[in-house]
Amino acid sequence: MRNLADHLNMCSVNTATLGFQAPIAEVIEAVARHGFGGIAPWRREIEGQDVSGIAKKIRDAGLKVTGFCRSTYIPGATRDAFLASIDDNKRAISTAAKLGSDVFVLVVGSLKDIAAARRMVVEGLGLLLDHAASEGVKLALEPLHPVYAADRSCITTTAQALDICDQLEPSGMKQLGVLLDVYHIWWDPDVQRQIKRAGQGSRILGFHVNDWLLETKDPLNDRGMMGDGVIDLQGLRRAVEQAGYRGFVEVEIFSQADWWKRSMNETLETVRARMVSVT
Amino acid sequence: MRNLADHLNMCSVNTATLGFQAPIAEVIEAVARHGFGGIAPWRREIEGQDVSGIAKKIRDAGLKVTGFCRSTYIPGATRDAFLASIDDNKRAISTAAKLGSDVFVLVVGSLKDIAAARRMVVEGLGLLLDHAASEGVKLALEPLHPVYAADRSCITTTAQALDICDQLEPSGMKQLGVLLDVYHIWWDPDVQRQIKRAGQGSRILGFHVNDWLLETKDPLNDRGMMGDGVIDLQGLRRAVEQAGYRGFVEVEIFSQADWWKRSMNETLETVRARMVSVT
Repeated sequence: MRNLADHLNMCSVNTATLGFQAPIAEVIEAVARHGFGGIAPWRREIEGQDVSGIAKKIRDAGLKVTGFCRSTYIPGATRDAFLASIDDNKRAISTAAKLGSDVFVLVVGSLKDIAAARRMVVEGLGLLLDHAASEGVKLALEPLHPVYAADRSCITTTAQALDICDQLEPSGMKQLGVLLDVYHIWWDPDVQRQIKRAGQGSRILGFHVNDWLLETKDPLNDRGMMGDGVIDLQGLRRAVEQAGYRGFVEVEIFSQADWWKRSMNETLETVRARMVSVT
Repeated sequence: MRNLADHLNMCSVNTATLGFQAPIAEVIEAVARHGFGGIAPWRREIEGQDVSGIAKKIRDAGLKVTGFCRSTYIPGATRDAFLASIDDNKRAISTAAKLGSDVFVLVVGSLKDIAAARRMVVEGLGLLLDHAASEGVKLALEPLHPVYAADRSCITTTAQALDICDQLEPSGMKQLGVLLDVYHIWWDPDVQRQIKRAGQGSRILGFHVNDWLLETKDPLNDRGMMGDGVIDLQGLRRAVEQAGYRGFVEVEIFSQADWWKRSMNETLETVRARMVSVT
């Protein structure tokens, strides 16, 4: 397993971790100043702005864009809504390319009829693959914790995400892979086997770290800093790296009541320390 | 699939649904008066009381005890704590027998080291089987929703629960099976296949209904009444019955801010109506 003390250049900061307190230019500067090698911005920080200029700022700061968050939910109540989401996601994939991101993150959404939602996700991903290929952007399907199954994601396990990858790309990976976030997968009794499977198919497109607090007050916006919760971070990182993953370790923490209230500097310093000590 | 309008005698009320507002004698009377055929009490209502007398009251009311809730968490921080929980669970299994319950419900607990917790659960169940057999009580292992993986249950999927059953009873069911609660399993992309598997092994010892509210405020105590949420109740009941299950359909709703504030009568009337209309 890599020693992250020697690989801070392979650690990345997902900007949501900093609570969107400052314009993207300041966030880029702060992330680079703390020694990280990567950054993963959100659409709200980028869309409608000078994307090429932001891409240049990121490059000039010596940072790699490790992901672009995230898809518009794919399932729709009507066919038109579904098709509109596909168009919207195509535009976002083009923005990801312009920003210099190799990866577009897919959080797929859900419906009351979860079986129908799952069918729409498979169809929708199929409709996005050619566009993603033409833009040179890979699609990182993120299985979400089952607590979000009613609204944020009908894809709830790594096995299910990999099954969809295999269904759409039976001859192996070209455009589609998975994003593994410890918050979403740590509880899964099948996780070690599925990480190995993902690695064998070279389908691991990203690895997110944070922690599950024992006293989680809000499953959406009360994530913990690495080391403050129950997740076996080193066990999961070891599994991912043994499966062949050599990409970035990206921190992503949604924390309305705690980290988002702190300064960017304090959060980034803590992330750096915890990357080395417990991740 | 059974028409529950004709099978209210095969519908049961888990007493937690009524918020523990009244002594067990009143609860028994109310459940019977509303036409249900079963009741599933909790230890807090029974332990330290005249168990045989309560058992007689339940029988006299024409009710069947469909389950007894629930186990003391099995994993312990020390070996002594682990062994104490086994002893405690043996006593509770004896109480279940005295109460006339064929089934003792196992909610197994967890630890920060979830892998260690899982090993202790398997060992602990092994230590309980002989005692359960001698008392004539089956052990219903309940996989819990992954949102509880840090504290309430290291067993998070139906597949995992069935794997443990197969490991401990490789030649088929004698004492160990699963309790399937829609709240805990509805999100699982593998659920239909695992229900079928559970049925083939005759391991389905209970079926709980309620609903997952789209706007869940608290994953522990904000469960919905059947029909108020997103769960495909009829799809799951159909699968369970097609897998051979002919036992009770038991309602279990934890609802601090809503149903527990209503009268027992209002809740029981609503349960009866929703059993027939949407379950």
